[in-house]
Amino acid sequence: MESITIKDVARICGVGVSTVSRAINNHPDINVDTKKLILETIKTYNYIPNDSARNLKRVDARAIAILVKGITNPFFSKMIKIMEKEIQQKKYSLILHHVEDEVDEVEVALQLIKEKRLRGIIFLGGYFSHTEKKLRQLRVPFVLSTISATDLIPREIYSSVCVDDFKESYKMTKYLCELGHTKIMHITAHEGDKSIGRLRLNGYMKALEDMGIEVDQELIVHMDSMYEAYSMENGYEITKKFLQKGKEFTAVFAISDQLAIGATRAIIDAGYQVPKDVSVAGFDGIDLGRYYCPRITSLKQPVDQIAKESIQTLFEAIENKNKHEHKIFEGELLEGESTREVKKG
Amino acid sequence: MESITIKDVARICGVGVSTVSRAINNHPDINVDTKKLILETIKTYNYIPNDSARNLKRVDARAIAILVKGITNPFFSKMIKIMEKEIQQKKYSLILHHVEDEVDEVEVALQLIKEKRLRGIIFLGGYFSHTEKKLRQLRVPFVLSTISATDLIPREIYSSVCVDDFKESYKMTKYLCELGHTKIMHITAHEGDKSIGRLRLNGYMKALEDMGIEVDQELIVHMDSMYEAYSMENGYEITKKFLQKGKEFTAVFAISDQLAIGATRAIIDAGYQVPKDVSVAGFDGIDLGRYYCPRITSLKQPVDQIAKESIQTLFEAIENKNKHEHKIFEGELLEGESTREVKKG
Repeated sequence: MESITIKDVARICGVGVSTVSRAINNHPDINVDTKKLILETIKTYNYIPNDSARNLKRVDARAIAILVKGITNPFFSKMIKIMEKEIQQKKYSLILHHVEDEVDEVEVALQLIKEKRLRGIIFLGGYFSHTEKKLRQLRVPFVLSTISATDLIPREIYSSVCVDDFKESYKMTKYLCELGHTKIMHITAHEGDKSIGRLRLNGYMKALEDMGIEVDQELIVHMDSMYEAYSMENGYEITKKFLQKGKEFTAVFAISDQLAIGATRAIIDAGYQVPKDVSVAGFDGIDLGRYYCPRITSLKQPVDQIAKESIQTLFEAIENKNKHEHKIFEGELLEGESTREVKKG
Repeated sequence: MESITIKDVARICGVGVSTVSRAINNHPDINVDTKKLILETIKTYNYIPNDSARNLKRVDARAIAILVKGITNPFFSKMIKIMEKEIQQKKYSLILHHVEDEVDEVEVALQLIKEKRLRGIIFLGGYFSHTEKKLRQLRVPFVLSTISATDLIPREIYSSVCVDDFKESYKMTKYLCELGHTKIMHITAHEGDKSIGRLRLNGYMKALEDMGIEVDQELIVHMDSMYEAYSMENGYEITKKFLQKGKEFTAVFAISDQLAIGATRAIIDAGYQVPKDVSVAGFDGIDLGRYYCPRITSLKQPVDQIAKESIQTLFEAIENKNKHEHKIFEGELLEGESTREVKKG
């Protein structure tokens, strides 16, 4: 069956095209019975109205954008899935956009605002060092979800939802120290990074300091920009390279579970055992860590709560433009099979 | 800085609003210098034009939708990432929609066509048993990517890109048989499923038959609809339950790597070793399998090629409405560490 046009509907109902248009657009100036006939005809013949202005009003005006840095991170996939559900429940449509590492996400947002008619934006992942001037151009409320932002951005112009990355990283490092580890390799973000990676690095260093252990810069290993950030491949390749240097260490603390898994595989491929020879801990608490062998010790972020609260906070800001909130959730240290007390030797 | 309106631009330039509009819309009926002044002012003050009709023409008319069944499957995440890049290169915008298992994806597509102005659709994952009548309502070209479709749908109304699931599954089953396995547990889709899961099940059964091994229905285990389809959790839970029955088996062939990983973890938690006691093989060849311990033997789908070819085929169909193609790619059997010759005894 061919699809029919508005003209066909008019012909079938014996009315003019403008009458059909009035029926579709819920215009008051139309006979009730005529309207009923037209709407039934539309249903019967499955006519799909295609009136631009109406569609724009109905749909595009109620869109939320999620701009993500780091698509293949399963931590984000799960966040997006939950957010998508929440947005659909609110009858908004979702515009999902993945932003490459080197791309300016605020520029992308400005472009989207220009093209679509967004009501709000979730920025997911990455680091925010944009100027106040630029952020004010966004004109719609936005929430930074699991993002760290520079102190230079006034907190009253945005909302945020995350864990305290410094504190949670401190917690994990302290845990490893308490197992007797003093030589803990830390897999961190790229050199010069100021994102959550930086906060977690600071937490790592402060915990060592508080435990009376000197920070050894040679044990701090940066992700390699040759490979995807936070990926298993990245963790694998940098750990493989690190092992070749022969530097002594008894534990690894990586700032994501994927990096930790890559590191584990590299350690095993080099002929060592985890955790017998080397303990490995990650961050995020993704499902995969629970099914990995050995189960990865991790700092679990409450992904459900963070995702739901991000959307909730955004909608509150949409309803009340001046309302901005900053919410911090507590992480949970999950003891897996990948860590143990340091070998006495 | 507050954002400015079209009226502000007009005031600053000392012209009328309609003149600003003409400048923005590249209308010929405007003085060249005036136009230059207006465009410069727009740039300086960062005015964002918000003219619905123009935006609709420029953006919404050039959108491609990807409708995915099964978001957390990393196989699809990777496909989507590649497709997104291809679509961006073609200067189209992407509407990404995840469809729950029980939801009719063609209904979603019809709704999207109504609301957005799509030029084409990629259906990713799932099973297609929709009527020809319904599919013809789509009115835009569509490609079934890694989907099996019933023979009742005329092949000249759609395009498709996939591997031959029957053949690839046959290949893997034959491989396990050649290692000496005769009691191969098969983790397949839900009961009554007609998707790629069914094709892979048929491949499994045919291979056993050709190898002279009787099909044992008790070794065919369906995913549990309590858990997410194709997930590690699903593989874990059904394998755990299967082990409790005490049914003898020496190998597992699961229709996804995630299921295989869940099965591996369940086997290990029950006190057995992989592959010493039980061999495990998966399907898809996702990255994770390479970093898992043991590395998962799998049937690798050429995800890059499938994703790129899906987009390519869609654009060819958009340019020439009558052109529909059906492309089949070859899979590759990756031998990991999770399979070995069957224990003699």
